[in-house]
Amino acid sequence: MSASPRIRLERLLARLDRFNRIGALPGGGNCRLALSDEDRAGRDLLVQWMRELELAVSIDAIGNIVGVRAGREDTEPVMFGSHVDTVATGGAYDGLYGVLAGLEACEALREAGVVTRRPLALVAFTNEEGSRYTPYAMGSLVYVGALSLADAYAIRGFDGTSVGEELKRIGYAGPARPGAMTPHAYLELHIEQGPLLENEGLVIGAVEGITGLSWTQVTVSGRSAHAGTTPMHLRSDAAHAAAEVVRFVRRLAQDMGGAQRATVGRLELAPNQINVIAERAVLTVDLRNFEQALLQQAEDELAAFLDRLAAQEKVSISSTSLARFAPVAFDDGVVGLVETVARELGFPCRRLPSGAGHDAQMLARICPAGMIFVPSVGGLSHNVHEHTRPEHLHAGATVLLEAVMRLAR
Amino acid sequence: MSASPRIRLERLLARLDRFNRIGALPGGGNCRLALSDEDRAGRDLLVQWMRELELAVSIDAIGNIVGVRAGREDTEPVMFGSHVDTVATGGAYDGLYGVLAGLEACEALREAGVVTRRPLALVAFTNEEGSRYTPYAMGSLVYVGALSLADAYAIRGFDGTSVGEELKRIGYAGPARPGAMTPHAYLELHIEQGPLLENEGLVIGAVEGITGLSWTQVTVSGRSAHAGTTPMHLRSDAAHAAAEVVRFVRRLAQDMGGAQRATVGRLELAPNQINVIAERAVLTVDLRNFEQALLQQAEDELAAFLDRLAAQEKVSISSTSLARFAPVAFDDGVVGLVETVARELGFPCRRLPSGAGHDAQMLARICPAGMIFVPSVGGLSHNVHEHTRPEHLHAGATVLLEAVMRLAR
Repeated sequence: MSASPRIRLERLLARLDRFNRIGALPGGGNCRLALSDEDRAGRDLLVQWMRELELAVSIDAIGNIVGVRAGREDTEPVMFGSHVDTVATGGAYDGLYGVLAGLEACEALREAGVVTRRPLALVAFTNEEGSRYTPYAMGSLVYVGALSLADAYAIRGFDGTSVGEELKRIGYAGPARPGAMTPHAYLELHIEQGPLLENEGLVIGAVEGITGLSWTQVTVSGRSAHAGTTPMHLRSDAAHAAAEVVRFVRRLAQDMGGAQRATVGRLELAPNQINVIAERAVLTVDLRNFEQALLQQAEDELAAFLDRLAAQEKVSISSTSLARFAPVAFDDGVVGLVETVARELGFPCRRLPSGAGHDAQMLARICPAGMIFVPSVGGLSHNVHEHTRPEHLHAGATVLLEAVMRLAR
Repeated sequence: MSASPRIRLERLLARLDRFNRIGALPGGGNCRLALSDEDRAGRDLLVQWMRELELAVSIDAIGNIVGVRAGREDTEPVMFGSHVDTVATGGAYDGLYGVLAGLEACEALREAGVVTRRPLALVAFTNEEGSRYTPYAMGSLVYVGALSLADAYAIRGFDGTSVGEELKRIGYAGPARPGAMTPHAYLELHIEQGPLLENEGLVIGAVEGITGLSWTQVTVSGRSAHAGTTPMHLRSDAAHAAAEVVRFVRRLAQDMGGAQRATVGRLELAPNQINVIAERAVLTVDLRNFEQALLQQAEDELAAFLDRLAAQEKVSISSTSLARFAPVAFDDGVVGLVETVARELGFPCRRLPSGAGHDAQMLARICPAGMIFVPSVGGLSHNVHEHTRPEHLHAGATVLLEAVMRLAR
């Protein structure tokens, strides 16, 4: 009655290509910051494509887009997908690949005339990146009930706008209740964003869990003064204190070793003038570790350093947590399924943890969840040159399709 | 026939107050960046006040405003004044005090019916601060012929605008030729912007000369990558390299000692996101020394450090000079006159150098020039809390009036 469903790479690549014309940057890469006009244009295209495949589209109140393909039974769906927003200088695949590979899986099933027992739910979660509004994975956090809609709406971005206002402005504050469907399982296909699979010549990663993460905003208050007349020893220089934080953070990660990561990616001075000693510096510290205790240790060491620094630099320092997520272990059944499917299909595979956060880590709170990784060339991500080879895009989508079919049996 | 001219403090304070309503910042201080709408409003008010005192106002092609009070003879004028633009978070007196004290001197002479032998020329030079467009002292540089009008017009600011366009937009690209008048002498009254006079309980500083200054813009190019997945040793982190520059610059000044100053006041990262390793950092280094050889040494050490840093941090670094002025010694006759007048009027006085640049250092290229300093409370300047006590404002204006009268004899 039905042929075996088959991923068509050209169709997947064509959709990626078409979608990435939205928010394309001169010279390559993409900018579709959450709830921007570009994000809206991307969402509109996704909804159009979902409807062309006769998925039943619903938009929930935090803007998550879910397209449901009915199953033979009206029961909990198998959910899969990712996100379509990007960082400010993002690449072609982060998030988008998981969503469009999911769409391709739906089309492959449709072409083959396959109807699964369970419904399938293809999802694009709102604001996974957290580049404009923190915390990241906002849509999935609201979906699983870990962040209230009211709290999410009130969040202000780095540009001063609010989530609620921008969501309404772009027309994606939908009528559905976030989390209305509890999935039977959630599976997310994503590029690795790191060098491990490539270095080991592997094609598929069965993701065991997600790193713990702590984002802190540090504000240093010094005293603005004339750069030419103020003796060095009388200065309260917020820029210098901020530089000490940047250096400390790297040393911290090096000293702790292992998989500890520590990054200052944002830093702004005020008044930010050549001939004025900086009065204020605002910077962010991104700390990650797979071990809860080590993440806590990194946070404690940072806090202690900031106390010493304030005294030493004659500045005052305050800090606020912007996001804090404990490490997450994925469901062993889902991880094992990904491994099994990859092996059966002949794709070299290993288990590995993810150093990046993903919507799957939030979904793990309400259902068995897991992820499939494919290699990133040079391990590069959050970079306009982010790339994954077409055959790896094909392999990942094929594993997703097969795993989803098995979960939906 | 004529009473002795007398500075009226209330009138001077009232004018300072009225003028500082323009560009007033919430919570205190002023922002009248060069060629902004606020700068235009300030210029308009100054021109109005000059006309009320029957000064013959001319605007030159770089926007310098000169108001001439005729003398008994039509010869080289005695020029005095300063500037009315501010840094982005400026105080009440930097620049403005010298201009409005000059205006008060003109009014005092008028009230007393005194006509000097030489004409008097009250001047407000364009863009002394250099906060929006470098180099600083742009108006006086063009006035003395050290910067061509065409080159000045083509300069682009940190906000992408050009000097020529903005000057026309605010209506201050005037018809007069810059430098049309060669002054007999130039005298500039200014707040000290440093702690020396206050610390020694003095009222007047007879400024001997101006520090040499070197402004460099440093651009660090690294590689943007994911903050969670990129191992520490594989990073090319522009933020970290920038932080090393900030620290080096302070150590350089401390190691050199003496009057060496070194400051990073501007620093910007791209893409400037929490979870993205910085691809680019653009920062400025402000180096100052009274000794030409030591300033050169500081520049050389910075350049050598940047070379080492690029290799060590696996980034590329380029640098551009934004401004470079050799130290300037003022005319001994003018410095001596300021000292003599201060002593005769009973104001405790000393000779001192200026760690800040001023228009007077440019005027020194075409005529005998000097400056009068009054104390800054706490040595604070380029700060919204910049303050000078009213009695010191009065003393400075009185010395200016008397010195100008003697120069104009």
